[in-house]
Amino acid sequence: MGHTRTLVAGKLRSASRLPLVRAAGAQHADAMSTATPRTIGIVLFDDVEELDAVGPYEVLAYWTRQFPEDGYAVTCLSRDGRPVTAAKGFVLGAHTSFADADRLDVLLHPGGSGTRPLLRDPDHLDLVRSWSAAATLTTSVCTGSLVLAAAGLLKGRPATTHHGCLDELAALDDSIDVRPRQRFVDDGDVITSAGVSAGIDMALHLVARLAGPERARATRHGIQYDPEPPV
Amino acid sequence: MGHTRTLVAGKLRSASRLPLVRAAGAQHADAMSTATPRTIGIVLFDDVEELDAVGPYEVLAYWTRQFPEDGYAVTCLSRDGRPVTAAKGFVLGAHTSFADADRLDVLLHPGGSGTRPLLRDPDHLDLVRSWSAAATLTTSVCTGSLVLAAAGLLKGRPATTHHGCLDELAALDDSIDVRPRQRFVDDGDVITSAGVSAGIDMALHLVARLAGPERARATRHGIQYDPEPPV
Repeated sequence: MGHTRTLVAGKLRSASRLPLVRAAGAQHADAMSTATPRTIGIVLFDDVEELDAVGPYEVLAYWTRQFPEDGYAVTCLSRDGRPVTAAKGFVLGAHTSFADADRLDVLLHPGGSGTRPLLRDPDHLDLVRSWSAAATLTTSVCTGSLVLAAAGLLKGRPATTHHGCLDELAALDDSIDVRPRQRFVDDGDVITSAGVSAGIDMALHLVARLAGPERARATRHGIQYDPEPPV
Repeated sequence: MGHTRTLVAGKLRSASRLPLVRAAGAQHADAMSTATPRTIGIVLFDDVEELDAVGPYEVLAYWTRQFPEDGYAVTCLSRDGRPVTAAKGFVLGAHTSFADADRLDVLLHPGGSGTRPLLRDPDHLDLVRSWSAAATLTTSVCTGSLVLAAAGLLKGRPATTHHGCLDELAALDDSIDVRPRQRFVDDGDVITSAGVSAGIDMALHLVARLAGPERARATRHGIQYDPEPPV
């Protein structure tokens, strides 16, 4: 039993930090660890919805830490690099400032009531356009898609958002093909998701896009995502 | 369309803060707002798993802020009231210190690799026993149940944990009836959940226990929890 416990603790440790012990792929991981990983940036701002940011972070950080050989890292950005107070009062720390993240490989813009001031913030919209232009993939969770729409990034595209904000999305840009019934909408280089918890599904899809479905399944298994809503 | 946008924005605002406008129940909410709400405390510590804490927080904070008339509030506690660095590097702020939360109505202990040092921390186990003795409900997510087990709170009870740690749970207390296949195990005054994302399901069950299934369904709808894992 002691042996089992040690093994299990070792597994958990490897899931939450850079792996200490890996049976396969360790050499590859070591080889990659000297290269700069490609960056997935999660944008934080005051009144960001907690789970919009942390759901995808859990998925992406599990994957990138468990499989560093895939060459990605996930980081959280805020305007000045300081913590933000999320929409329901949780204080979330950022890893870096917007200015220090001049290039992202994948942009992930969460939603929340704090998106509304951003829709009227030309500096933020400029930054989102600039990140998106340099990124391989531009993604959003919940009302994050309103910010993408205000930045002109959803023109003529299919997209979705929180079920309570579909009209708001259409009103921001009537060329958007609003998809009310999809958990997320993959339009190639832009992926938008439905409300709040849908970001977990979208992030798993992102792992599948970037590293294949096996990685996404391993991540789903690691975070035991076999949801059974009890009501 | 402008009218729709205003309404929708109003709805979102009411979902993320104390309601500004409520068609029904507003008077009741006002009457209750002078009473001290019952406290649901989420325990934070270094290397807590991000989603173990934030998944239930999202569920519980949505409910308590949308329905203050139910008389509950949710708060995050850390030993010294300062932020913790979670298992995958997200920095999470606490609302108060352990010392300032001498009584909780509902204790929620998340898991994560940071539970391991807590299993050998007599002060932490004493505190958990003391919180639990005063609480109506003692709950855990993922490997949070290992802490409850080490504190002697699962003696002779059915319980669960992360699928990778079931043996570790049994080894801590062989009187525990380990349930490997349940999303969460409700044993009356103690509820344990399976790994990481299972905390969302457990928290919805908690809302149903404390305020009825209608509230839990409204919360599920608000956070659009209609999961469709894509892999």
